[in-house]
Amino acid sequence: MTETERQQLVDRLARQFRREAGPDAGSAGPIVAIPADRALDRLVVEGACRFGVCADRPEHAGFSACELAPPLARMIDHTALKAETTEADIRALCDEARRFCFASVCVNPSWVPLAAELLRGSPVLVCTVVGFPLGATQTAAKAFEAESAVRDGASEIDMVLHVGMLRSGHYGYVEDDIRAVVTASRRAGASAVKVILETALLDDRQKVIACVLSRNAGADFVKTSTGFSTGGATAADIELMRKAVGSGMGVKASGGVRSRADAENLIAHGATRIGASASVAIVQGTVSTSTY
Amino acid sequence: MTETERQQLVDRLARQFRREAGPDAGSAGPIVAIPADRALDRLVVEGACRFGVCADRPEHAGFSACELAPPLARMIDHTALKAETTEADIRALCDEARRFCFASVCVNPSWVPLAAELLRGSPVLVCTVVGFPLGATQTAAKAFEAESAVRDGASEIDMVLHVGMLRSGHYGYVEDDIRAVVTASRRAGASAVKVILETALLDDRQKVIACVLSRNAGADFVKTSTGFSTGGATAADIELMRKAVGSGMGVKASGGVRSRADAENLIAHGATRIGASASVAIVQGTVSTSTY
Repeated sequence: MTETERQQLVDRLARQFRREAGPDAGSAGPIVAIPADRALDRLVVEGACRFGVCADRPEHAGFSACELAPPLARMIDHTALKAETTEADIRALCDEARRFCFASVCVNPSWVPLAAELLRGSPVLVCTVVGFPLGATQTAAKAFEAESAVRDGASEIDMVLHVGMLRSGHYGYVEDDIRAVVTASRRAGASAVKVILETALLDDRQKVIACVLSRNAGADFVKTSTGFSTGGATAADIELMRKAVGSGMGVKASGGVRSRADAENLIAHGATRIGASASVAIVQGTVSTSTY
Repeated sequence: MTETERQQLVDRLARQFRREAGPDAGSAGPIVAIPADRALDRLVVEGACRFGVCADRPEHAGFSACELAPPLARMIDHTALKAETTEADIRALCDEARRFCFASVCVNPSWVPLAAELLRGSPVLVCTVVGFPLGATQTAAKAFEAESAVRDGASEIDMVLHVGMLRSGHYGYVEDDIRAVVTASRRAGASAVKVILETALLDDRQKVIACVLSRNAGADFVKTSTGFSTGGATAADIELMRKAVGSGMGVKASGGVRSRADAENLIAHGATRIGASASVAIVQGTVSTSTY
C-alpha cells in the first residue's frame, strides 16, 4: 500500500464514520468496523484515533487504538523538553501520544497541568523531569518539584542525579538526594521514579556506582541521558546499566535515539523504555522531522 | 614589565613577607608595604592575596586587595555551572574569586552552602541560578529554590524566565513567574534578582517584552544568556536591553564572554555586570584556560 493509498483509505473511513455518526462524530456514536489486521496496525491506530475511538472508551469498539499499537510505541516516552517548547508544541506532542499510544509524554514541570488535561482519560501517562538537566539544585528543591508535579498530574518522575557530587566521591549525598525524590514522589502518588545518570559525564565505574545508589534509594529505573549534555544513549552503556541493576529495575535509553533501528538496538541490549522526540518516526520507521 | 619580571617581583615580595611574618605568614602578622600604584593593580592584588591580606581583615593593611582590584573585576560574576562541576572546582572558583575580588561566584544551588562558607568574611557575594537553564519548572518550585538558596547564603539570584510561555504569548504567566521569585528572594534577604532572557531563543520584540515584564515584576537586572543554549551575549542585545530597561536596572552580559576585549565591548554597549568562567583571563588580559 502506497502512502497515498493509505491516506485515501484513512480519509474514506473517516468520512464514512462522520456520515454514520452524524453530529456526535469524534465524541461518541456507532463504530465503523475496521479489520484488525496486524499488517494494518499503524493504519488502524491512526484511523481509530481519528474516529475518536481510544482505549479509554472500550465500549466503543471491539478493539482500541492502544491495543493495536505496536509494542514499541508502548515503550516510548514521547519527549519535548527544550526551553523554547511552546503551548502549541505541547498540544501537538500530546495529540501524537494519544494517536500512537506512547507510554507517556515527557515534559518540563510547568507543562504538566496542560499535558494532564490533554491526556485525561487516555492510557498515556504524563512524565516530567526534576533537577533537570544539571542535577545540581538542592535536594529539598528536587523533592518539592517532584511532589508538585505529581500533584499536578505527573505519574512518572525522571530526576537527574547530582553528577558533580558523584564525581566528587560524595556517594552518601547522591543516594540521599535520590531517596528524597523517590520518597516525595511516592507520597504524592507517582508510579515510577527514573534516575538520569548523564552517562556522558561518567566513567564506567561511576556509572555502576550510580546504578547501585539508585537501586539502594528505591528508584524504579535508571536512565542514560538528559539529551542536553555531550552525548546520549549507547548500547554499551545500556548493557552495563542492565548488568548493574539486574532484572528488577527498568533501564531507559534516552538522548539521540532518532530511528527505529536505534531503538531496537538499545532494547536488544537491555533497555525497557525509550525516551525520544523522534517517537513518531521511530514507530513508523521513517526519518524524523520532529522539532521538539 | 614582562610576565617574567612580574612573576619575579610577586615571588620576591612573597618571600620577603614570609621572612618577616615568620610562622604566621598567610594567616596574620606584620604587613609588607606595597606601593599602591594604580599601574600595578593586578600585581598588587595578586601579591596582597598571596600574603593573606584581604578586605575582610582591613586591620592588616592600609589597603585591601579588593580596594585595589581593577574596576572590571568588581563587575564579574565568576561562574561555574556545569553539571559535572565538582567540589574541587567550587573550591578553586572561590579561591580565585577571593584573590581577584570578583563581584560574586555564580554556582548551582546545591553548592551555595559550600561557597558561602568559603567566602565568609570576604566582599565576594554568592550568586546562584534558579529554574536553570531551561526556565520551565513550576513557579512555586522556582520560588522555593530561590528562597532556600538565599537562606543557604546566596545574595543574588539569577532566574531563567519561562521562554516557552513567552513565545506562546502568555505574558501574564511570565511576569507572575518572575514576580514570585523576586518576592521570595527579597523576603529571604537577597540583594538582587537577575532575569535571564535566553536571548538566543527570542526575537527582538520578545527581548523587549521580556525586559518590560522583568522591570514590572521588580527585578534588579536583565541578563542575556544561560550559557547552555545556542548563543550567548552580543553587543546588539546588550544595547537593546539597556534601551528597554532604561538606566534604573542592571544589565548582565553572559554566555561566551571569553576575553577582556569581549567584556569591555559589552560594557561599552551598556552592560553593568559580566558573567563568565574565563574571569581570570578577562582581568589579566590573557587567554582563558578555565574548565568550569
